[in-house]
Amino acid sequence: MTAGPFTFDLLAQDGAARAGVFHTPHGDIPTPIFAPVGTQATVKSLTQLELLSLDAKLILANTYHLYLRPGDDLVAALGGLHKFMAWDRPILTDSGGFQVFSLSDTRQVDEDGVTFKSHIDGSTHRFTPELSIAIQENLGADVIMAFDECAEPYDRDYNLQSMGRTHRWAERCLAAKTRADQALFGIVQGGVFPELRIASAEYIASLDFPGNAIGGLSVGETKAEMHAMLKLVNPVLPADKPRYLMGVGTPQDLVECVGLGIDIFDCVLPTRLARHNAAMSDSGRMNMMNAQYARDERPISEICTCYTCQTHSRAYIRHLIQAREMLSGTLLSIHNIHTLLTLAARLREAIFAGQYTDFARQYLMNLKQ
Amino acid sequence: MTAGPFTFDLLAQDGAARAGVFHTPHGDIPTPIFAPVGTQATVKSLTQLELLSLDAKLILANTYHLYLRPGDDLVAALGGLHKFMAWDRPILTDSGGFQVFSLSDTRQVDEDGVTFKSHIDGSTHRFTPELSIAIQENLGADVIMAFDECAEPYDRDYNLQSMGRTHRWAERCLAAKTRADQALFGIVQGGVFPELRIASAEYIASLDFPGNAIGGLSVGETKAEMHAMLKLVNPVLPADKPRYLMGVGTPQDLVECVGLGIDIFDCVLPTRLARHNAAMSDSGRMNMMNAQYARDERPISEICTCYTCQTHSRAYIRHLIQAREMLSGTLLSIHNIHTLLTLAARLREAIFAGQYTDFARQYLMNLKQ
Repeated sequence: MTAGPFTFDLLAQDGAARAGVFHTPHGDIPTPIFAPVGTQATVKSLTQLELLSLDAKLILANTYHLYLRPGDDLVAALGGLHKFMAWDRPILTDSGGFQVFSLSDTRQVDEDGVTFKSHIDGSTHRFTPELSIAIQENLGADVIMAFDECAEPYDRDYNLQSMGRTHRWAERCLAAKTRADQALFGIVQGGVFPELRIASAEYIASLDFPGNAIGGLSVGETKAEMHAMLKLVNPVLPADKPRYLMGVGTPQDLVECVGLGIDIFDCVLPTRLARHNAAMSDSGRMNMMNAQYARDERPISEICTCYTCQTHSRAYIRHLIQAREMLSGTLLSIHNIHTLLTLAARLREAIFAGQYTDFARQYLMNLKQ
Repeated sequence: MTAGPFTFDLLAQDGAARAGVFHTPHGDIPTPIFAPVGTQATVKSLTQLELLSLDAKLILANTYHLYLRPGDDLVAALGGLHKFMAWDRPILTDSGGFQVFSLSDTRQVDEDGVTFKSHIDGSTHRFTPELSIAIQENLGADVIMAFDECAEPYDRDYNLQSMGRTHRWAERCLAAKTRADQALFGIVQGGVFPELRIASAEYIASLDFPGNAIGGLSVGETKAEMHAMLKLVNPVLPADKPRYLMGVGTPQDLVECVGLGIDIFDCVLPTRLARHNAAMSDSGRMNMMNAQYARDERPISEICTCYTCQTHSRAYIRHLIQAREMLSGTLLSIHNIHTLLTLAARLREAIFAGQYTDFARQYLMNLKQ
């Protein structure tokens, strides 16, 4: 399989950290990059104009959610996800695999696919690799993902069995795929088991996807285990294809995992934290409901250039939270996403400058103070 | 009392309808005007940047709410309401009178003031005319309101008694006021009783406020009764001062009440309807949750120039509502506020053109189809 329009230019390396550009039909994605999550075709609480103002280059949407509501056929009939949600920049959809395993109460996995019950109304549905691809082709994102099983990380026997199935499903996804304007990424699984992760990376690499993802991490294992797996997997994955670490996205994760060779991140964390009144900052997480901010005229971060910090005080944001005004969620989402997008850009600069190690050490030291 | 910086230029009249400009320290307000309501120092679900993009000229905030949370002393310590909420255009605060009577479960009115319980925590508080003015001076809005009692509209004896008290309170507010950079407006009461309304308008007019408000309407009486009261009151109020109809703001109300000589409106309706999935339009209200919109690619209104209509389909907005995504509230608030702001501007144009009657007839005919 060739990459088609989806070439990846590796522009600089600093140790294992990489800076590049991934080309897609809806625009270029500079890497390292963080992708905000728009689960239901909306990054929660933000207008698309606000996302553009944040200069988000890539956003993610969830196949499981959009299949259930409003339905991928409806999205296709309305011209696809870009037109449906009025977002003309790159979009990535996951395969639905993770949500089937994390959101659905009842599920039955067999060699052919997964039968599950909707978290919305309990109705029964079935995903197969072929259906996941068909749904993702209806949605029409630039990057689509192979249908995989995200297994519990600590059961070796189950991970061995599940990994094999995920590999066979990856081949079925490749065979099912028909659209030339979408890049299909493979997904490495294997829990916390070094030999499984290496075997999975070798197998997925052999299928020559235009990009490769690492799944099944940040699902209960320790940070040390996650880092150990990345150290094993990334050197096996091809250097000339982007590497995407799925569902991971604290500031610390970005800094550490870029250092282990990751290019793309996504996570609901910035918007979820915002709805729980927390602000990300270079010195750690701030609970904006804290009484200490009641009369604090400073912005969340005095060095931040986001709309929220350029406009509003901690005292105002705390007032909105106390008064249960939804604007607090919007303002904190803007700040948190800006924090991750600019952190990715700073890491990219540091890599070009050959100063990744210094930057990372300094950043992580500040974070832990 | 002189108007100070708060002069009103009456620029055109067409029948009883008027077009003018009210000058304030934070900018000029063209009239007729609709003021979006920011009860708790935020127009619900909108950023101040969105309000600026909508070109809102005047917003309202509620003294009762801000006194209780975060406290007017805190707002004053942080530089006043304009700075606190980062809104550099004109602001109007009400007196707290209406909320004391509508939100507080228990209240005791006496000649000196009102004792009431907070709707937040049940704690006991007391407003007097002097305290209302002191709070409003702490908040620092451009236009502040006399402390009044909003009585049930149909009890004549009570309205007579209450109106007298409201008049005495208006004089106490005038005496208590100290800031030259705020305009204090008087409020006409009198329920649905013609002779009381006329007496109240005469009394309030005699106090020579820089602007006059009409309270106690749209609180349970019929539209016909409201219009009858406005027809009696407006000719008594001075023509060279703006007239503000408190808490009224459907499209129909704007068109009809401008025709009776009203200049300023405020209402929570556009944002409240938005949170209940309803869109205002020139042809009436639309329930955007309706299944008929599921695959409708058109904007809410095909002639609307708001961000929502320029960007999104009815189908997308319905999806957001079905998926319980808060973006639907933001997008509908933008559309509804835009609808009222541009309607006020269209009425102003019609008055300048001497075509108010034709415009109103056509508009109301379309609305009722």
